[in-house]
Amino acid sequence: MSTQIWTRLDYDRPGKQVGHLHLPHSVHRSAYGNIVIPLGIVAGGKGPTLLLTAGTHGDEYEGQIALTKLLRNIDPKSVNGRLIVIPMLNAPAARAGMRTSPIDGANLNRAFPGDPLGGPTAAIAHYVSSVLFPMADAYQDIHAGGSSLDYLPFVSVRQSGDADLDARAMAAARAFGAPLIQVWGYSPDPRLSTAESNRQKIVSLGGEFGGGGAVSRRGLAIVERGLERLMAHLGIMAPLDESPPPPALEVEVQGRDHYVYAEADGLFEPLADLGESVLAGQPCGNVHDPDDPLRPAALHLFRRDGMLVCRRHPGQVRRGDCLAHLAAPRRG
Amino acid sequence: MSTQIWTRLDYDRPGKQVGHLHLPHSVHRSAYGNIVIPLGIVAGGKGPTLLLTAGTHGDEYEGQIALTKLLRNIDPKSVNGRLIVIPMLNAPAARAGMRTSPIDGANLNRAFPGDPLGGPTAAIAHYVSSVLFPMADAYQDIHAGGSSLDYLPFVSVRQSGDADLDARAMAAARAFGAPLIQVWGYSPDPRLSTAESNRQKIVSLGGEFGGGGAVSRRGLAIVERGLERLMAHLGIMAPLDESPPPPALEVEVQGRDHYVYAEADGLFEPLADLGESVLAGQPCGNVHDPDDPLRPAALHLFRRDGMLVCRRHPGQVRRGDCLAHLAAPRRG
Amino acid sequence: MSTQIWTRLDYDRPGKQVGHLHLPHSVHRSAYGNIVIPLGIVAGGKGPTLLLTAGTHGDEYEGQIALTKLLRNIDPKSVNGRLIVIPMLNAPAARAGMRTSPIDGANLNRAFPGDPLGGPTAAIAHYVSSVLFPMADAYQDIHAGGSSLDYLPFVSVRQSGDADLDARAMAAARAFGAPLIQVWGYSPDPRLSTAESNRQKIVSLGGEFGGGGAVSRRGLAIVERGLERLMAHLGIMAPLDESPPPPALEVEVQGRDHYVYAEADGLFEPLADLGESVLAGQPCGNVHDPDDPLRPAALHLFRRDGMLVCRRHPGQVRRGDCLAHLAAPRRG
Amino acid sequence: MSTQIWTRLDYDRPGKQVGHLHLPHSVHRSAYGNIVIPLGIVAGGKGPTLLLTAGTHGDEYEGQIALTKLLRNIDPKSVNGRLIVIPMLNAPAARAGMRTSPIDGANLNRAFPGDPLGGPTAAIAHYVSSVLFPMADAYQDIHAGGSSLDYLPFVSVRQSGDADLDARAMAAARAFGAPLIQVWGYSPDPRLSTAESNRQKIVSLGGEFGGGGAVSRRGLAIVERGLERLMAHLGIMAPLDESPPPPALEVEVQGRDHYVYAEADGLFEPLADLGESVLAGQPCGNVHDPDDPLRPAALHLFRRDGMLVCRRHPGQVRRGDCLAHLAAPRRG
Amino acid sequence: MSTQIWTRLDYDRPGKQVGHLHLPHSVHRSAYGNIVIPLGIVAGGKGPTLLLTAGTHGDEYEGQIALTKLLRNIDPKSVNGRLIVIPMLNAPAARAGMRTSPIDGANLNRAFPGDPLGGPTAAIAHYVSSVLFPMADAYQDIHAGGSSLDYLPFVSVRQSGDADLDARAMAAARAFGAPLIQVWGYSPDPRLSTAESNRQKIVSLGGEFGGGGAVSRRGLAIVERGLERLMAHLGIMAPLDESPPPPALEVEVQGRDHYVYAEADGLFEPLADLGESVLAGQPCGNVHDPDDPLRPAALHLFRRDGMLVCRRHPGQVRRGDCLAHLAAPRRG
Amino acid sequence: MSTQIWTRLDYDRPGKQVGHLHLPHSVHRSAYGNIVIPLGIVAGGKGPTLLLTAGTHGDEYEGQIALTKLLRNIDPKSVNGRLIVIPMLNAPAARAGMRTSPIDGANLNRAFPGDPLGGPTAAIAHYVSSVLFPMADAYQDIHAGGSSLDYLPFVSVRQSGDADLDARAMAAARAFGAPLIQVWGYSPDPRLSTAESNRQKIVSLGGEFGGGGAVSRRGLAIVERGLERLMAHLGIMAPLDESPPPPALEVEVQGRDHYVYAEADGLFEPLADLGESVLAGQPCGNVHDPDDPLRPAALHLFRRDGMLVCRRHPGQVRRGDCLAHLAAPRRG
Repeated sequence: MSTQIWTRLDYDRPGKQVGHLHLPHSVHRSAYGNIVIPLGIVAGGKGPTLLLTAGTHGDEYEGQIALTKLLRNIDPKSVNGRLIVIPMLNAPAARAGMRTSPIDGANLNRAFPGDPLGGPTAAIAHYVSSVLFPMADAYQDIHAGGSSLDYLPFVSVRQSGDADLDARAMAAARAFGAPLIQVWGYSPDPRLSTAESNRQKIVSLGGEFGGGGAVSRRGLAIVERGLERLMAHLGIMAPLDESPPPPALEVEVQGRDHYVYAEADGLFEPLADLGESVLAGQPCGNVHDPDDPLRPAALHLFRRDGMLVCRRHPGQVRRGDCLAHLAAPRRG
Repeated sequence: MSTQIWTRLDYDRPGKQVGHLHLPHSVHRSAYGNIVIPLGIVAGGKGPTLLLTAGTHGDEYEGQIALTKLLRNIDPKSVNGRLIVIPMLNAPAARAGMRTSPIDGANLNRAFPGDPLGGPTAAIAHYVSSVLFPMADAYQDIHAGGSSLDYLPFVSVRQSGDADLDARAMAAARAFGAPLIQVWGYSPDPRLSTAESNRQKIVSLGGEFGGGGAVSRRGLAIVERGLERLMAHLGIMAPLDESPPPPALEVEVQGRDHYVYAEADGLFEPLADLGESVLAGQPCGNVHDPDDPLRPAALHLFRRDGMLVCRRHPGQVRRGDCLAHLAAPRRG
Repeated sequence: MSTQIWTRLDYDRPGKQVGHLHLPHSVHRSAYGNIVIPLGIVAGGKGPTLLLTAGTHGDEYEGQIALTKLLRNIDPKSVNGRLIVIPMLNAPAARAGMRTSPIDGANLNRAFPGDPLGGPTAAIAHYVSSVLFPMADAYQDIHAGGSSLDYLPFVSVRQSGDADLDARAMAAARAFGAPLIQVWGYSPDPRLSTAESNRQKIVSLGGEFGGGGAVSRRGLAIVERGLERLMAHLGIMAPLDESPPPPALEVEVQGRDHYVYAEADGLFEPLADLGESVLAGQPCGNVHDPDDPLRPAALHLFRRDGMLVCRRHPGQVRRGDCLAHLAAPRRG
Repeated sequence: MSTQIWTRLDYDRPGKQVGHLHLPHSVHRSAYGNIVIPLGIVAGGKGPTLLLTAGTHGDEYEGQIALTKLLRNIDPKSVNGRLIVIPMLNAPAARAGMRTSPIDGANLNRAFPGDPLGGPTAAIAHYVSSVLFPMADAYQDIHAGGSSLDYLPFVSVRQSGDADLDARAMAAARAFGAPLIQVWGYSPDPRLSTAESNRQKIVSLGGEFGGGGAVSRRGLAIVERGLERLMAHLGIMAPLDESPPPPALEVEVQGRDHYVYAEADGLFEPLADLGESVLAGQPCGNVHDPDDPLRPAALHLFRRDGMLVCRRHPGQVRRGDCLAHLAAPRRG
Repeated sequence: MSTQIWTRLDYDRPGKQVGHLHLPHSVHRSAYGNIVIPLGIVAGGKGPTLLLTAGTHGDEYEGQIALTKLLRNIDPKSVNGRLIVIPMLNAPAARAGMRTSPIDGANLNRAFPGDPLGGPTAAIAHYVSSVLFPMADAYQDIHAGGSSLDYLPFVSVRQSGDADLDARAMAAARAFGAPLIQVWGYSPDPRLSTAESNRQKIVSLGGEFGGGGAVSRRGLAIVERGLERLMAHLGIMAPLDESPPPPALEVEVQGRDHYVYAEADGLFEPLADLGESVLAGQPCGNVHDPDDPLRPAALHLFRRDGMLVCRRHPGQVRRGDCLAHLAAPRRG
Repeated sequence: MSTQIWTRLDYDRPGKQVGHLHLPHSVHRSAYGNIVIPLGIVAGGKGPTLLLTAGTHGDEYEGQIALTKLLRNIDPKSVNGRLIVIPMLNAPAARAGMRTSPIDGANLNRAFPGDPLGGPTAAIAHYVSSVLFPMADAYQDIHAGGSSLDYLPFVSVRQSGDADLDARAMAAARAFGAPLIQVWGYSPDPRLSTAESNRQKIVSLGGEFGGGGAVSRRGLAIVERGLERLMAHLGIMAPLDESPPPPALEVEVQGRDHYVYAEADGLFEPLADLGESVLAGQPCGNVHDPDDPLRPAALHLFRRDGMLVCRRHPGQVRRGDCLAHLAAPRRG
């Protein structure tokens, strides 16, 4: 079964086109309705195809803004190759300001390679996997921590097991020029978008550029400048200047013990800050229960040494929530 | 009609008691149920009564943590007078992590002086107004920006129109020792808790100590140290040390033009940071619409000079949302 | 402002009429809609007017069944006086099987004397208070424990403070012939239907005839037989036989300490049964927390001597829920 | 207490202004948020003030479109006097496409004269009653049948009991030039917008211009042409031509028996059409129950002679829904 | 895995049986509950089996009424062969008056061939595909536009690719005698009920007989008369008269460009009427935005010549909604 | 694909461990969240592994309490073999007090053998099937009637078709010592937990120990004593005493006619009690409709002889609900 998603745009036409993907969605309020997903195509000259997506999670905004500005401002005459740009890939989630789709409750970044006859989220994943990835030479899916996590901004690479592909991805990440590069060396879930693009042998970048459901001015500046450098690295655009990207710290998440999970419900008082280097056994934070003020706070410790790159944003936590995660200096 | 709220604690008993207020709430899942609100009373010796509340908005956490720790740690023998401490005043909202009550949808800080037979939120306001305020000499209601606003931390005073009362409140605010003191010189709504406590001639403080629905480590430190200094100022506790509080900047919100409101729906890219001094006409931020990438961004300007003390937290905005507000140096 | 509720039935016409009250309710699905409440009027000869209501809480069923069967089976020629019978007074709640109205969330037995322009629940209370009570000489509002409580079946009287009225109500309760008569000697809330009927000097009975949201065969038999005896006592119907009602135990609820409230969230293991006589300090039940199996159970004790007449039905409890209440032998 | 609604527009400034009313609404997603209601003011020369509102019910669209087009197209230089135009008065309901507000569930046309501290719907009614009506000489609130009713298009007048005011309203209705004029001679509810404007002695028109939640091309043409004639009648605009309005049929709703209400749940098969003259006792329609196909259909008859001006739109009905209403030739 | 749906009716018994299908549905309110779907079987003599379904979409009513009346009125002695009649196939959707099931959110006409262990909608589709279709010689699934579309009434045929089957279906459609016959020549979705019946080589008809969630008197008359003619055509009933069906116009939907989709959110002002012949480039309608009255209306044009057979019903539209679709004269 | 559920407990470590299963659940409120399920492991000496689960349905409480108490009280030194104890297997349902999961709406006992990448309920079933069952020699899944059914307490065995396995299960059931043993001789659904454990050749018991969403003191005593006897039977614990279990009545559910289903909506008046022996044709109960009091009650009869072991608990019923089921003396 092939995709039911359609568009009036033409992926092969030179110039700048901005329009929509239409995902048929027959529901009570519209028997012949469509979920509409903004799409931009900018093509010119000879060169590779770079696919850029944001809004895979609807409450991560730096990428959505950066790609909107990119489409608005880019001059197609400056392009060699092709950009396919989707600022809010899970459009229903993005319109709702939610991580997950309000229609089917699904998390798009746990839905790859997708299903053309599944719910809207699965159908979007399937379109990316079956139509867009086969056209792409390089891919970046731009993330942030969303409503529940604060992240130190970084560009990231997910290890594919293919050394050549990983090396090309790492070169692209370095060209991107973020102050921090994170390697996901531990990721059991095969349903992420970059897990699928890795399987299709596309040079793939991720990145977390802020969090808490807010817009980070610093994260936005990093991603806007990084996209310019990435397009220059790929030969799609001329570089803005000839200076090399600034040197970056390279770190790696190596396993479950890099994460701290809440062992009690309550309010989380953090005891370490993003960017701080911590030692195993050092306090990560307390969980207090204002419903029982005399109950002792639940103290949570880090299980490993590392740099604090991610911390829970909301004050309220439930047992099982991730409170923080670390990254260690990259091995080898 | 008098309140239906009851407690097994005794406001007149010396020592430390921690228990609950019971608000009868006869509903499907519990015909003879009660909404339970944690309450602490710490009394000893001679001295004034200080009422401390947090969780008036359920998603403002620094005060909830500070009052929970205060109740857990305080030695009643060190107290001269009485503390009445309610860490999560709108308990249903606090348990839900919401600004407003999930039961009746009401905002407790727009419900004073309350109604004993109204919804739970109105009944709580009525209990504070009719039972607790008559016992109190001083009052602080501890706030933060909640899920939708980020605040520079400050202690605050709401002008009552009674010069003597305002002078005593200002002295208490200075004793609190926050780096910033804000005077609410413009506040048309009579339904706030401190508007009612002002009407009852109680020395009243407010304060915003963080925001975004998170816990600010810096804001929490300011409020914990400030409560110690406030109790010392009132003679309830001995001061921790004899040093005077650090000097504070004093600012004032003077009118509607100190606020910037969104004129379009979309994603808010801020162009100024908390604590920054801005000029009238300077950009506050852009609102982008990723659903129509080619539509120009909506540029929002500040209408007055001032210091940026509050900014919207979530990236997603709707027309009419407050994007930012300023405060000006306090007028003579 | 007078009621907006109307009916095509005629309260003054002899014979048996069964029809509806119409409460105008202009909503999205029906701009000129009405909430429809079944109503029966059975009149003949000379005699007093007895108002019978059930379904004040929608999940209490013995009265709804008894009044439905009464209307179906009664021969109007056997009546001297008038019966006004409303089997499901809060019809939206009864159709939903809920204690409270799904439309406005309100508890009809906390809504008297009502408001003609309030929500539907307040408008129903107002109609009863302003139209039906002025026609009634006697009134019974038939209850059960609803979804959250199990009750030992009894007929009840609420003390009005008017000795003559209370004596006539007690005589009616004894005539009803239930094995247990309960006197509500403690009831701070003025918004119950029988509080209002007491204010209007109507001989008023209540009663709890089962619970748990189920139908008690024994409770239903007591209420069906009791209604026959009550109509005979009032002279509306001839008695079925000349035997006096069986002797009843008479008990009284005297204060808050007759109630046991949950002090913890969890699962309630009861340690005493309905009808059992208990002593102050005796175990009422444990609350276990399967989410933390090693946490000790929270043991709850009775605070007074008495007979267990009411116990929480659902296994799951939250702090503040009523676990049980007692009644003591009636004071001289 | 005065209104909390504010605007940056100036009611006294000549020319065309289009902006918004701001209704402060402090909620979880926006602590300092506002409900924003579009507002247009067109003023010039000397002349009366005409207030035009649509969207009092959010699912009635002809008026919303007509007033939007009027604001877009009108040349302020052609105006003598002042137009105050609000195309979607209950803006939250209109944005949701609902009769009632999704925020507080309220029906704006059952909320007058309103309450400045009530819910948003009551606050809007209060602003109209206390700020706009005192500025207005004439008023039209443009309706249709909404999602649940289909109406034959007409302009309408609600009898005020003030003969002079009623005569001036009738003259305005005739000038409007609709093919049908309906007089509401029976209307017990004092909470409609035109009931309040009548109390304030403003010449007031209503009208129903379609229904079923759709847009009637014919109804829209009648209302657009009617507004031009009404403005000419009031002297605000020059007439488009000198021809008199076409003659209209004048009818009246005289009482509850002009309405037919469903006596059963099921599917409504209508047996008469809009505009048809019917006789008392003639079939109005059947209600079928496909859940019990063998159950006989419930036949509903008209109770009076008259013209069918309104019929239920949706096929599904519940007992108590209005199936149809008639109007009779206007009495003397 | 075979179906879990069961019935106490016997498909092989002569005479008229009306009962139910039981679909086991174990949920909170009923652990051993069943979703109950009305079913009628009318059998006698020798002849083919005709399966008739309505309520595939719950808000399409002409078919539900026609099949209810058919079951109520039919004399089994007049039948040669067998009728299997299901007036509300997606019973949960029909009881809710919704296109889609309120239980699983699914659209039954996008669920074929179904799944016996999927949600209730998939289980119904599976029962039709695996139990009913194998018994049927002919099948009609009766539709209308539902809440969101208005249709010109027509009987329809979906091209199967099997010329013989299509010819027999076309003959049946002509016998049905509707004034319009539509051929679905473009339908990429394989999950419709008639796509599955085509795969099982059953002579299959569809048809749209009204819309807007209302009951069309004209559409109902067409479907009731058409069913009589269809049964006569198949030899199941004697013809009511010997007259041939009236001649019909035959049209065809040929591709996506026959459809017009909304390119903006707002209120839809239609500029062409059902039944009108239009030309490519002619206005279909405007979309107005009363939230921004000065924004120009979005004009939508037809992309092809054709007859307007379907138009959106509700005034409110979102980008992606179908505003209208055309049909062209049938190609030779 | 293997399970994503993880735990910090070690199934192979001697002693008593109580901790949690973590089911990764990436949602809006917690991007790296986990559903946490309490788990206890008690191991020592040599012996078989017994898996005990409760809370498969969240509103069945006797088993949840019994397993919580077992974990709290057991001395690991007394154990020979291993106990794996999960007091609330569908933890989200149990926390909500619901039969089904509030997250995905699924019934865990209709979800086996599960799916590691499905919803949380399917993932739990898969973990039990793929990780726990392979470790288990014996298994008991402890149930009750839940919110909608009342059960006479019994231990049960589901026939597997493997005579040896069934004999060993029957021996275990007799050792358990409940006063009633029920054999499920009719069970078409392959998705129950014990259907899967039967397929894996594990000695499997079930049982229903109460109902109505309450806690049965008698049922709890039976299950607590039964677990002791079962562990002794398996050799895991020493018997508490040497007395044989009391003799039990053995019954069997043999087919659909043992069940009575509601044929009308309304209120259920039962006419037989749990434990009663009934005859085919005897009244089971009436269904009354208080919305139409004059409509005759719908009388429901038993279809077979047998003992009433299960009856609907809530008074309100809908057509298709199970009102009662019988069991017959065990054959052969």
